[in-house]
Amino acid sequence: MAANVETIRHSASHVLAEAVQKLYPGTKFGIGPAIEDGFYYDFQLPAPIQPEDLPAIEKEMRRIISSGAEFLRREVSKDEARKLFADQPFKLELIEGLEEGSISLYEQDGFVDLCRGPHVANTREIRPDSFKLRSVAGAYWRGDEKRPMLTRIYAYCFASKAELEAHLKMLEEAEKRDNRRLGKELDLFSIHEEAGPGLIYWHPKGGRFRVELEKWWRDEHYANGYEILFTPHIGKSWLWETSGHLGFYKGNMYSPMKIDEDDYYIKPMNCPFHIMVYKNSTRSYRDLPLRWAELGTVYRYERSGTLHGLMRVRGFTQDDAHIFCTPEQIEDEIVEVLRFSLHMLKTLGFSVINAYLATKPKGDGSVGAPERWAQATESLKKAIEKEGLSYEIDEGGGAFYGPKIDLKVKDAIGREWQLTTIQFDFNMSERFQIEYIDADGQRKRPYMVHRALLGSIERFFGVYLEHTAGAFPVWLMPDQVAVIPVGADFADYAKQVAAELKGVGIRAMAMLSDERMNAKIRDAQGQKIPYMLVVGAKERDEGTVSVRYRDGKQENGMPFATFKARVLEKIASRALDI
Amino acid sequence: MAANVETIRHSASHVLAEAVQKLYPGTKFGIGPAIEDGFYYDFQLPAPIQPEDLPAIEKEMRRIISSGAEFLRREVSKDEARKLFADQPFKLELIEGLEEGSISLYEQDGFVDLCRGPHVANTREIRPDSFKLRSVAGAYWRGDEKRPMLTRIYAYCFASKAELEAHLKMLEEAEKRDNRRLGKELDLFSIHEEAGPGLIYWHPKGGRFRVELEKWWRDEHYANGYEILFTPHIGKSWLWETSGHLGFYKGNMYSPMKIDEDDYYIKPMNCPFHIMVYKNSTRSYRDLPLRWAELGTVYRYERSGTLHGLMRVRGFTQDDAHIFCTPEQIEDEIVEVLRFSLHMLKTLGFSVINAYLATKPKGDGSVGAPERWAQATESLKKAIEKEGLSYEIDEGGGAFYGPKIDLKVKDAIGREWQLTTIQFDFNMSERFQIEYIDADGQRKRPYMVHRALLGSIERFFGVYLEHTAGAFPVWLMPDQVAVIPVGADFADYAKQVAAELKGVGIRAMAMLSDERMNAKIRDAQGQKIPYMLVVGAKERDEGTVSVRYRDGKQENGMPFATFKARVLEKIASRALDI
Repeated sequence: MAANVETIRHSASHVLAEAVQKLYPGTKFGIGPAIEDGFYYDFQLPAPIQPEDLPAIEKEMRRIISSGAEFLRREVSKDEARKLFADQPFKLELIEGLEEGSISLYEQDGFVDLCRGPHVANTREIRPDSFKLRSVAGAYWRGDEKRPMLTRIYAYCFASKAELEAHLKMLEEAEKRDNRRLGKELDLFSIHEEAGPGLIYWHPKGGRFRVELEKWWRDEHYANGYEILFTPHIGKSWLWETSGHLGFYKGNMYSPMKIDEDDYYIKPMNCPFHIMVYKNSTRSYRDLPLRWAELGTVYRYERSGTLHGLMRVRGFTQDDAHIFCTPEQIEDEIVEVLRFSLHMLKTLGFSVINAYLATKPKGDGSVGAPERWAQATESLKKAIEKEGLSYEIDEGGGAFYGPKIDLKVKDAIGREWQLTTIQFDFNMSERFQIEYIDADGQRKRPYMVHRALLGSIERFFGVYLEHTAGAFPVWLMPDQVAVIPVGADFADYAKQVAAELKGVGIRAMAMLSDERMNAKIRDAQGQKIPYMLVVGAKERDEGTVSVRYRDGKQENGMPFATFKARVLEKIASRALDI
Repeated sequence: MAANVETIRHSASHVLAEAVQKLYPGTKFGIGPAIEDGFYYDFQLPAPIQPEDLPAIEKEMRRIISSGAEFLRREVSKDEARKLFADQPFKLELIEGLEEGSISLYEQDGFVDLCRGPHVANTREIRPDSFKLRSVAGAYWRGDEKRPMLTRIYAYCFASKAELEAHLKMLEEAEKRDNRRLGKELDLFSIHEEAGPGLIYWHPKGGRFRVELEKWWRDEHYANGYEILFTPHIGKSWLWETSGHLGFYKGNMYSPMKIDEDDYYIKPMNCPFHIMVYKNSTRSYRDLPLRWAELGTVYRYERSGTLHGLMRVRGFTQDDAHIFCTPEQIEDEIVEVLRFSLHMLKTLGFSVINAYLATKPKGDGSVGAPERWAQATESLKKAIEKEGLSYEIDEGGGAFYGPKIDLKVKDAIGREWQLTTIQFDFNMSERFQIEYIDADGQRKRPYMVHRALLGSIERFFGVYLEHTAGAFPVWLMPDQVAVIPVGADFADYAKQVAAELKGVGIRAMAMLSDERMNAKIRDAQGQKIPYMLVVGAKERDEGTVSVRYRDGKQENGMPFATFKARVLEKIASRALDI
């Protein structure tokens, strides 16, 4: 049986370390784990190295690999290990952190490393053409900025050349689609460090996408039995003490604002506000289920180093909902919320969707009655199975307050993104003591379910931008049609065509600058505008249009009425094609 | 010539003081000014009084009025005044605050008061049936909570009995329409003091109103050449220092949140964020005008005592826009923004709209070149005149940063509410140094105009709730049709009728509780639902509906298709009638 890819990666990191030892004598070694698409190793080098130095290291690695050295495991006492690594301060520190008893070492080609393993049997199991050193970066020893800064060498590493190549191609494509890059090129949004990092400013074109997305989102929610709330962005400390957030979530909350004598916090979550509305009236079993949605903008602390375009921000708009229902209703409600989520994701064009079910954590510390956990988990599982989703179970991976399903979608270049989450909350419902009066006159605790469908509008925009490379479906495109006159003489006619399109609700604009026609077509294509209409004497006289599609196709002499009807149909049906 | 009503009110306050002196010897007197609908007087009484004591005071006032005493003015030196008011500590304090020179006193019927006047000539000019003592309240001397609490007696007072009665009737009507009361009765919104006063929680029905209103607002803005932005709710102190808000507006801003090493403020205004977007690209004269709108939620400090339902809140959503344009464009832009505002207000059913133009403050302290002030003011005036609006000019009443127009609408019971404001801003544009490149290649400063159309969504909701008494036009009603079966046997048919209405986009619900039909009709009428459909055997067999309107009218035997078409037409046309 071939070694699994993680073992290959880990083994290759030892080979890297050996190569560095040989090329840079005196190097001190940190750690070298396998990571998602390869591995890294941290070194304290005798002199700085540059990306230009990587090919020589790669070459040395290939030499080691082709030598066919075996990976040999042996066990030594802590004391022996200390002697072996006497001139390796980082290894010594690691040794001190290990439990008493024997310590395992791996050796290949004379290079010995402290390591739990496992490793491949022979360096030849690492394909010399299936890895690539990627970059050099600084990394604090043990991630602690008070400890020495080491040099980290990253590498991609796969089981085969084909897999490496596919990965490199995906990365190249991802680079082109980077939401920060497209956001700028398509003038969709900006971030202004000087006014606060991690905060998104939606420009007119980004705003148009968001307005259309949110309109659809609201319509669908209403059509599917939800109501929409609007709640404040700030709440007094009483609210966050009652909810428990000041206990278990304070690290993600901003420091308070003082108003009169009270502390107010900007909200990191919408739930306590929805609960206040729930508690505003006496609720009967007849009123349930209640499905309350809100596009609620929340603010959470993230370390500035982790912020990343639209993908990781400090302020974001959750497309949130809370469902309150009776135990008798929970199964149907979960089926329904999952069905609705899948319907929404599929409308947006995600066809590969996987579910991840996280169940009750082991041990104490979780809240909620065991039979509620059981019923909730069962209802999640049944719903997934009913929808025929492929899923993984993360046993014990739920939050302390309830089990959950996360849905991850696969994007156009094969990456997985978590969007939807459906979570039970036994904590909030207890803390606020929410109740309904059942048919038997008794006060009972409803089930409470959190749900975010797209997750956050900002992050979803980022994912969708990278998924579509900015070529959104027609209904979400800021500009749907560019009308391009063949020459200045047809500027008025182009304006007229654009105005007629606008008149029927199509977002059209006439391109009337002094640039040449071909430059305008290139510009419109660059903006991913689905349809470019080239109009001149022939088109005007015939009442036709020459259509160029953003994917390069072309159709001449199409009756204008046909074109209008086709675009309106694409918009109305939220078609994914153009 | 009859005395003006303010003089009458002020004179009546002296008569009140005289009556109180007679009935409560030993009373110390504060001040007694005319106010909007009457007057008040502040007293330090020897013993507390109750509302029940007011009729006796009114009676004594009427006796004084009928005595026909004359109001006599005389002037005395400060020293003489001190002697005259030796046993009146509050009057002595007022005297100390006056400039040196002679001080005017007014005397009627032996009662002397320190007063600038003017007053009526004779108490008989106050109509004994045109005033009414209203209430007793506590009020700190000079509004300072560290000074003594005085007793304030409020009165309504008009020039005629008819005006007083009309005012009392309006107040009675206003009481019924009070947004706090209707908000509760119609389950539209709530405020939760314990989580923070002045913050609005929109319930499902209020949320539906808001979603429909905002959808229309966005559609109209797009159709009228605006683009829509979304910007963050918080910004670093750099932003507020640059904008100047930390200088001239800090009292209305909340204290900062600390994030990493920086202070962040929750936004009291959207403008600096829109400017950041403007500055994100180089702008050419070809790009202008830019009209950028946002439904931006802002937070401002208001003293808790001044908060009042939806009318005065701490968090509100401005329906904001900023217009950036060249000096050549400003006149057309102002005409357009005013036309658009009037179009929107009229769609909502406001037919009486008055304009208030505020011009450059006298003296120094205002920013912006004089010729810009002149051009801006002229463009505002021209636009008002073009629209044929009646208007008042408040000379020197503009803000330091530019002239403005406010639009006030008259509601159904005759009250005026300011909604729209259109303001030039010479300050922000200078402070952020915004520019465009003109046709001549020169960098120039664009004009910047702020505009809020409805003002704030929260306050507008309050005004509209009181204007319509909750009977919104059909398109804004949370529930448009209630289907009421004549008996339990027709529950399924009622459900079917409601489902058919929902199918064509009408918000319908079947009322299926155990209550009797008439109770359901009363309930639906109380909820101001425009149409109630009573359905039984006859209606089912004939395919008709019996319609009861919320205003009490009734039509039987209407073909169901006719009813559907009629309601859809009312919704589509945003009709004000039902």
